[in-house]
Amino acid sequence: MANNSNNASYGDDSPIAAFATTPGNSALTLIRCSGKGSIELASSVFAAARTKNNSLQENKSPLATAPGNTVIHGWIVSNKNEKIDDVLVSIFRSPKSYTGQDSLDICCHGGAVAGRSVMEALKQAGFRDALPGEFTFRAFMNGKLDLTKAESVMELVSAKTETSRRHAVSRLSGSLHNEIDGIKKLLVDVLAAAEIFLDYSEDEISADAEEAEGKLPKKDTALEALARLKKLSASWQLERVYQEGLTVVIAGCPNSGKSSLFNALLKEDRSIVTEIPGTTRDWIEAWVTIEGIPIRLIDTAGLRETGDSVEKIGVERSRKLLEESDIVLYLIDGSRGLTAEDKVFIANLGKHIIIWNKCDIAPLPESLRVSGQIPISVSAKTGEGLVELYAAIISEAGIKDLQLHDDPSSARLGTIRQKNLVDTACSSLEEAITLSDNDEPLDIIAPLLKDAVNSLGEITGEVSTADLLEKMFSNFCVGK
Amino acid sequence: MANNSNNASYGDDSPIAAFATTPGNSALTLIRCSGKGSIELASSVFAAARTKNNSLQENKSPLATAPGNTVIHGWIVSNKNEKIDDVLVSIFRSPKSYTGQDSLDICCHGGAVAGRSVMEALKQAGFRDALPGEFTFRAFMNGKLDLTKAESVMELVSAKTETSRRHAVSRLSGSLHNEIDGIKKLLVDVLAAAEIFLDYSEDEISADAEEAEGKLPKKDTALEALARLKKLSASWQLERVYQEGLTVVIAGCPNSGKSSLFNALLKEDRSIVTEIPGTTRDWIEAWVTIEGIPIRLIDTAGLRETGDSVEKIGVERSRKLLEESDIVLYLIDGSRGLTAEDKVFIANLGKHIIIWNKCDIAPLPESLRVSGQIPISVSAKTGEGLVELYAAIISEAGIKDLQLHDDPSSARLGTIRQKNLVDTACSSLEEAITLSDNDEPLDIIAPLLKDAVNSLGEITGEVSTADLLEKMFSNFCVGK
Repeated sequence: MANNSNNASYGDDSPIAAFATTPGNSALTLIRCSGKGSIELASSVFAAARTKNNSLQENKSPLATAPGNTVIHGWIVSNKNEKIDDVLVSIFRSPKSYTGQDSLDICCHGGAVAGRSVMEALKQAGFRDALPGEFTFRAFMNGKLDLTKAESVMELVSAKTETSRRHAVSRLSGSLHNEIDGIKKLLVDVLAAAEIFLDYSEDEISADAEEAEGKLPKKDTALEALARLKKLSASWQLERVYQEGLTVVIAGCPNSGKSSLFNALLKEDRSIVTEIPGTTRDWIEAWVTIEGIPIRLIDTAGLRETGDSVEKIGVERSRKLLEESDIVLYLIDGSRGLTAEDKVFIANLGKHIIIWNKCDIAPLPESLRVSGQIPISVSAKTGEGLVELYAAIISEAGIKDLQLHDDPSSARLGTIRQKNLVDTACSSLEEAITLSDNDEPLDIIAPLLKDAVNSLGEITGEVSTADLLEKMFSNFCVGK
Repeated sequence: MANNSNNASYGDDSPIAAFATTPGNSALTLIRCSGKGSIELASSVFAAARTKNNSLQENKSPLATAPGNTVIHGWIVSNKNEKIDDVLVSIFRSPKSYTGQDSLDICCHGGAVAGRSVMEALKQAGFRDALPGEFTFRAFMNGKLDLTKAESVMELVSAKTETSRRHAVSRLSGSLHNEIDGIKKLLVDVLAAAEIFLDYSEDEISADAEEAEGKLPKKDTALEALARLKKLSASWQLERVYQEGLTVVIAGCPNSGKSSLFNALLKEDRSIVTEIPGTTRDWIEAWVTIEGIPIRLIDTAGLRETGDSVEKIGVERSRKLLEESDIVLYLIDGSRGLTAEDKVFIANLGKHIIIWNKCDIAPLPESLRVSGQIPISVSAKTGEGLVELYAAIISEAGIKDLQLHDDPSSARLGTIRQKNLVDTACSSLEEAITLSDNDEPLDIIAPLLKDAVNSLGEITGEVSTADLLEKMFSNFCVGK
């Protein structure tokens, strides 16, 4: 995330530039530029590849006259006319671009330096650093995508599994937008009918109108809208897990085999595994995928009191990680058996799975129950019991049920913002229906319906404020 | 580096694909494709962005008919017609492409998953993973660049500083190619003159020819070529430092302030700094730039004998790192003064700089000399003495002199391969000149000149073997 100290704001259409790919030891780096006059600006630091007599100046502006959706090979040059990098520049002309503005994608060489030098040249030419999400913000402002699609772009980029990608692509294709629009149409129908009654009753009190006053017209339509909103709202529970994953912390006394289990779950040697207590001085984490669910797996420091101040920092962090975790895998050292220390720790845990480790050398006693659970018998060393452990994690997280009841073809929410707005719409609509059932007058019911419609409008961005948009897009990554 | 298990070889022109950017938490990911039929293949998994009735099949092949150097917006779709990602595809038609073949750059969404899924679709369509350097290999085989330019592409990508980038860009622009070509022309001139003499003397023994037999014709030209070859060869010494950098290891007894100095040099808090010996269990490294020179800075574990087996691993690694380093910064804990332990360690060091640390609380005794050096008085805590330390590192590495004698406008070598071939050409030419000075016959001198010309031809790739090329390009990164 960039932190621009100058007074750049999301509201302007000035030329911006940002790295769209991660700088690293790669073949290429992509820099994305957009804004009013951006093609002319880039043109001032560009020289076409084929130049006569090695003079760059003669042919400095082929970009400025290039048609949209074309690619030009050339050099980015400094204001001293020194060649900076050999690049491919794709030109996009308004409105046929991601942002809807004149834009360029500059494909430079990869590595630590080439892209940075090109970026410096662009900034000297007059580009400024893009704010996080500013390209997508501009795309939204120019009507290229609604907010659900804009958000799905970020969901796609941060997708951790195939499932998340598929769901994000579905939203990018408009599945959520269409569902929200459909529900809104139902509510607008109900609202329109209610307002006809209100208008009618104001002009002329008829027996019909009086009778209808306390009743919501098209109640079935309202109930259908409510059911669809509730289904959408419920979709977030599983979607959130697919997106954010579960935090699973491995805990246990020193030597219980935490790092070995961590490595067994990673299937690769990531942390140093030795027989010495306190080796894992600080926590180590890695992402693994279990049954489609991304799991943030954390190996904690030995959970013992210690006089060693470095290790103490580690122990304090462990406690904090335990509190933030979705599930704790608590390891009992099978070779030592269940100790008093284990019992104290387990008593203080939240959601947890008890694991009897080292079952290859010390089998789980048949009658053993720990805080009501039969421990899962595992050997991190041989891999025995890991499949059962995977199943237990998914089941303990309550995901198995959600997955069983999931309809793959239905629309899903992609962000907590959308979830909150759907819930707000839900509450307004439910209240409207309850008031109607209690024969309250339509003129106090209609505003609730309007609120619900507005909440849905906020989801897609039809109803929005500058503040809200700025807050939302600033959570995007730079270059999007 | 990919390791293809199938029998892919550099020799074929089959459709290949590779990530050209580092997968990461970025906005976009670029996949590069090239090869015979690559546009048609990609077309089979592509659907244009604007489709009627949401049906993707109708408009599946706009890529196949697109002209070169154009960009098309659309979806990559699976063979089940499921949308995988929203992409921009740049089309390049032979011979106007990097490789000279039909090629595509596919710009997908960033993150861990989208690019991977697109790559899977491409492979299902018939692309294979590109071998390291295979794109540039193809570019070379199709005459798009010579070997010095091909190598400069990799130098550019792995450039660690602005200076390396500038030098690589210069070679990419042809500076080295032109210099090699210029020297070769001189040698060919000499060789041609020598062969005229040889032909002449075979036909008709004249006094003139006999007199000339032992003399190299155009000796001045040969000497000019030799001088230019020697200058090129000498350029590698500094260039190598710019490219590879120096390995500088920080060593010293526990508590001498190694991690603090490491952090001070990094100007950021990277390793845990505490007062406890042995905190740095394993080495930590980072790249810093000192006066344009990339420095691989390594903070080692405490150099003490220990019963703690984890720490022992660290200590062994430290010793290994010390052996591999260009310079060791040896820290004396100023608050303890020079100890017997310090003296033992210093006696076993290679090139090193002695640092008197903690000078803020314990000033350097005026008369102190350690192994003949006046230690550099530094406080890692306050930053005192760091400027002097930077200068000492550059001077100790012998770089100051090289920089002073460096001509920024001259051609430089970029790889050890080029250096070895220039040296081979040098030796052949020197031998030819010596033989001539000793009045040896031209028919044993001429083959040496030919050897020199061939060595130069190998540098640019005019003279090459399949084995040599494969070995060279396999050191490239994938996607280049």
